[in-house]
Formats: sequence, structure tokens, C-alpha cells
Amino acid sequence: MVRPGRADVTAGPTLAVVARAAGVSVPTASKVVNGRQDVAPETRRRVTEALDRLGYIRRPRFDTGRVPRLVDLVVRSLEETGSGAVLHGAEGAAHDAGLEIVVSAAANRGRPDGPERDWLDKLVLRGSSGVLFHLAELSEPQYAWLERHRVPFVMVDPVLEPPAGVVSVGAANWQGGVTATEHLLSLGHERIAVVTGRRPTMSGDARVAGYRSALASAGVRHRAEYVRRAGPDAAAARRRTHELLDLPEPPTAVFACSDRTALGVYEALAERGLRVPDDMSVVGFDDLPESRWPTPPLTTVRQPLSEMAATALRLLLRMMDGHHPESTRTELSTRLVERASTARPGPGR
Amino acid sequence: MVRPGRADVTAGPTLAVVARAAGVSVPTASKVVNGRQDVAPETRRRVTEALDRLGYIRRPRFDTGRVPRLVDLVVRSLEETGSGAVLHGAEGAAHDAGLEIVVSAAANRGRPDGPERDWLDKLVLRGSSGVLFHLAELSEPQYAWLERHRVPFVMVDPVLEPPAGVVSVGAANWQGGVTATEHLLSLGHERIAVVTGRRPTMSGDARVAGYRSALASAGVRHRAEYVRRAGPDAAAARRRTHELLDLPEPPTAVFACSDRTALGVYEALAERGLRVPDDMSVVGFDDLPESRWPTPPLTTVRQPLSEMAATALRLLLRMMDGHHPESTRTELSTRLVERASTARPGPGR
Repeated sequence: MVRPGRADVTAGPTLAVVARAAGVSVPTASKVVNGRQDVAPETRRRVTEALDRLGYIRRPRFDTGRVPRLVDLVVRSLEETGSGAVLHGAEGAAHDAGLEIVVSAAANRGRPDGPERDWLDKLVLRGSSGVLFHLAELSEPQYAWLERHRVPFVMVDPVLEPPAGVVSVGAANWQGGVTATEHLLSLGHERIAVVTGRRPTMSGDARVAGYRSALASAGVRHRAEYVRRAGPDAAAARRRTHELLDLPEPPTAVFACSDRTALGVYEALAERGLRVPDDMSVVGFDDLPESRWPTPPLTTVRQPLSEMAATALRLLLRMMDGHHPESTRTELSTRLVERASTARPGPGR
Repeated sequence: MVRPGRADVTAGPTLAVVARAAGVSVPTASKVVNGRQDVAPETRRRVTEALDRLGYIRRPRFDTGRVPRLVDLVVRSLEETGSGAVLHGAEGAAHDAGLEIVVSAAANRGRPDGPERDWLDKLVLRGSSGVLFHLAELSEPQYAWLERHRVPFVMVDPVLEPPAGVVSVGAANWQGGVTATEHLLSLGHERIAVVTGRRPTMSGDARVAGYRSALASAGVRHRAEYVRRAGPDAAAARRRTHELLDLPEPPTAVFACSDRTALGVYEALAERGLRVPDDMSVVGFDDLPESRWPTPPLTTVRQPLSEMAATALRLLLRMMDGHHPESTRTELSTRLVERASTARPGPGR
């Protein structure tokens, strides 16, 4: 059973107010919010209409005012090094607000399409105040579930474009693609390839679009054979790089749409005995902690993952207080981190 | 106020039983458990004695049997890439047990000596079932606080030797130091240096001790000038490596007691135009995700961070059920991950 929050909270109506408006008992309204099946369809319709009309927001189950509230952070995998920066940003912002973070990994549970139903049930039982999703791919039923249970949530770097009205925070990926490509153009490169993800994603598509825009602005011809798609692991990027090197007119620079992809590019070049940046310039994207480890250290476009997560958490806090942001998409700027993997094209090129 | 758990739980007495044994009311016993000051010293003594005698274990605040229990994981920093593996292991084991993980970072709060008091207060208010600490340095008052509040806790890779009775899980660091050094000896190296942390730590000391044991077993003379202490960042290790290279008889191999240290060794060698492994063999320790990024990829001793955290969580679960492990220290084996940073000493050496 949901216990409504304290009456003095300004964040929308209590469940009691909703129940009164719908002409049902509080336990009945509670059943509807919690997705129970033992409610007549017409009753469910009345309660849902009142929930929507009055702007009901789920309250934490045990909101005594003393116990710190919990916010959920669901990441794709805790093993991906980018998750560390996301956790760091979310935890810091939560700490500042007197909240605590419950962390779950959505991956490796045999459900590639996002958090499992079991997890969502637990979230409601515990009375989560709100959820941040990082790199999530939610299914239609999962979006509907979150909506039905009035759980406020914000997506950090969603893989696919979320449905209208869903609040998300990402990097300025298009601008980052422009920045990477303009950097290579400014060094004198014209034969610039791009290696991106295997399937279309919101962030990858925007990065490649930025690459094309920068080429177009500079009046450099776009060549379809210079755009290669690889899986997320370095091995796939290595194979795509060998294909690029086998072209009649190979590129003199590669924009790798992630740092991990750039690692695969480095590996392929090493296998050919080619040197970075003398024989090939390489720019990455992300600025993972790993990016300063290769020789030479990788020039890359920094994605502000910590700030993205902190911003998402602060948006979530406002939603938990009953405010829906006017703008549903927030993008934070990227910047070029120049290390040592780019240079002017070699004399023979 | 603490609400005692359900009577059918087998894990020790409820607070009501403790209060009866001490001849006080339940609210008074609760005050003692929660560290409140408004209790007469004699009353506090009686309650503490009863808590100890009866083996009282703190119960989660809202143990309704339906709401998932929460376990706390406190890491030194979420930005350290090793934290990802620890979180991954702890979260997986918690998931298997139907628990959820609340994550906090102890660092960057202006308190280098561990979690702040504020955090500990929140933990009691929320009624945490138990705590895992990763790379913690708890102060005496903090250990006393955890003991007084009967919060079960397990330390993963404690920085310093914890007090007697504290349960901890670590890697077999001594054996790892032996493994790294024996690998270099087997390649024919005799002039083997070690670069470790600036100040004594439990894990670093054991790794260096393993290095010395392996040298002694092989009958290779130990040279004090080959043991160098550097801070945790790569820059300090870089300076120590330059010092080693300036010795009248420089080493032909370096055992870096962490992967991050190995990165500094690589940087110094590159600055001198020396190649890995032709001019110098390098072995790291940790097997962070970064360790395959340098050229050549780093040969290192793998520390099973995920398994350590999962083991610690399972120990914590048993302690939450009232069992104290017979052995307070568990060490998980390390293994050599051979990549490409080691070879026979060069002909001129």
C-alpha cells in the first residue's frame, strides 16, 4: 500500500485527494497506481483520469521526512568505464541534495531491452522517488509501466530517441562531430574517414551528421566508402580500419566515434606497421580514462558524462517536486582534448 | 525509532528482548543503539551489556518482508576505474540474493579518513542492513561507531590492516608479487626494480614482500636502490623511473605495483627513447580495463576485484543473518595476464 506523503509538501495532490476526486477509496486508488489487476475497468479508468488531471506524483513509500530519500540509477553495465563518471556525477549531485543512490545494472540479466520487470516491481515496492537511466533502451511496455506508476525518470544518453515528453540529457553529439572533423580539416586533411557503431543510435548518428556537416562546410567531398560501421568492441573497428587501408585511396585521418573504436584503429595501424600520427591521424570521442593510455595518447572529444548525470539528477529532483521541465532535451557541450594522435598529413599523402 | 524485525526471523533477538533483559523500555534501548546522548550512563551500560550478551543484530528499518533490503557500498572514489569492477561484483551478488545496493563515495568530501559522520548518521536513520567498504581507511571512532550501532560490515581491500575481528576480503597480494617477479626471473632478468606506493599499505607492502621473496628464492641479490616509492599518479612513477634509469647499473625490468604506476614507467621510457619490452620489461598489477590500451599492451597481475566484492557481499549476508565468519580474512588468488610488455633482457644488458 502506498502511504501518501506529508500534507505540507507542495508537490501535487496526495493519493487521498485523487481518490476523493475519482469517488473511490484510497486503497482502490492505491491498487491502480501499483498496477494491481483486481480493479474494475471503469474504476481504473476513473482513477487514471483523476491521476492525470491532478498531476499525481508518486511519493516515496516511507517519507517520514527524516529518512534520506532514495533515487535509482540504472546503468547498462557497471563494467563499462564510462559508468564510473556517470555514477560519480549522479552520486555527487544526490549527496548535495541529501539523497542517496541505489545502483542497478540492466545488462547481463538476459534482457537486452532494458531493466527487467522484476526490477521495476521492486522499485515500486520500495517506493523509489525517481529513476535515472544511463544508456537505456526501454521497451514500449516499460515506458508505459513507468508512466502508469507515476515514477519520475530522466534518461542520460538514451540509445534511441525516447518517446515525446520523456526527459533526457545528452552530450552535444552533433557539435562534437563537427569539432573533431574541423580539427582534422584545420591540419590539412581532406581524406577523412569515420568509424561509427554498427546500428543507428541517437548519439552515433549525430556524431556522423556533424562529420558530414563539417566536410560540407569546408567544401570537401563526402565519400560513402569512408563511412564504416563497426560493433562496440575494438576488434570490429580493427577490421573496418583494414578495409579503409585497402581502399585505392585510403584516408589520411580517422574520426573514431568512440575511444574504444579508436583503440581498434590503433591496433590495425600497428599491424600494418603504420605510425600514429605520422602515417594516420586519429580522433576519438568520449575521453574515457583509457584515452591517455595508448602511445601516442589519444586526441578525443570530451563528453561531460559526470556533468550530464548531475544535470539529469537535478532535473529529476525538480520532477519529483512536481515540476515538468519545459524543454525535454538538455545537451551539454563537448570539447576537443588535444593529445598527440593528430598531425598534418604526411608528405606522401 | 528502530522497529525490530519480524519475530520469526532466526537472526538473534529483537530489540524488545534486549530491552526486557536490560530492564528498560524499547525506546530507551533504541536510543542506545542509535547513539543518542539523552540516556543515563548506567542505563547505557546495561543496554550495551545486554546487546553484547544476546548478540543483537541491527534490522533494516522497514523489514516488512516485501520491500527489498538495502546494502550499502562505500567506495573511495567512483572515478577510479577499479571501482567499476567492485560495483559490478557487489551488484551481481546482491541481485542474486534479492538485495539492492546503495552506493556512496567517501572521497572528495574533505574527509580523507573515510566516510563522514553525516553519512554514518544517514545509514542508521535509513536502517542499513550492512555495509561493504572498498579501499576504506576508517578511523578508530568510525570503527567504534559501527560496532556500537551493530551494523555488520565487510572491508574489500582495506588500505591498512583493520582491527582484530574485522572481516575483510583482498587479493593474494604477496603471491601476486611472487608471480610477477618469477615471470621476470624466468625470462632471464636479474636486475629487477619495483615501484610501489609512497606510503605503506596492506596490499602494496605484501606485493613488495612477494617480490623480495621471489628474488631470495632465486638467489638473486636484493638491491635497496631498486625499490622506489611513488604516489598513486603516473607522474610520480615517471620520475622514479627516470631515477632508476640514472643508476650506474639500471634495471632491465620493472615490477610496477599497480597498472597506473606502469603507465608512468612507460611514459619515462618513451621520454628516453627506450622501447618496451626490447629495452625494458614492465609488469603491472591490477589488470584494470586500461591495461590493454598502451603499446605494447601491459603484462600484469590480475586482481579479481569483481569476485572479491561478490565474496564480501556473500560474507556480509551471512553476518546479517547472525553468523560471524570463523576466518576474518579471505584472499582470492591472482594470476599473470601475459600481454606484450615483457621479453628476455636485450643483448647489451
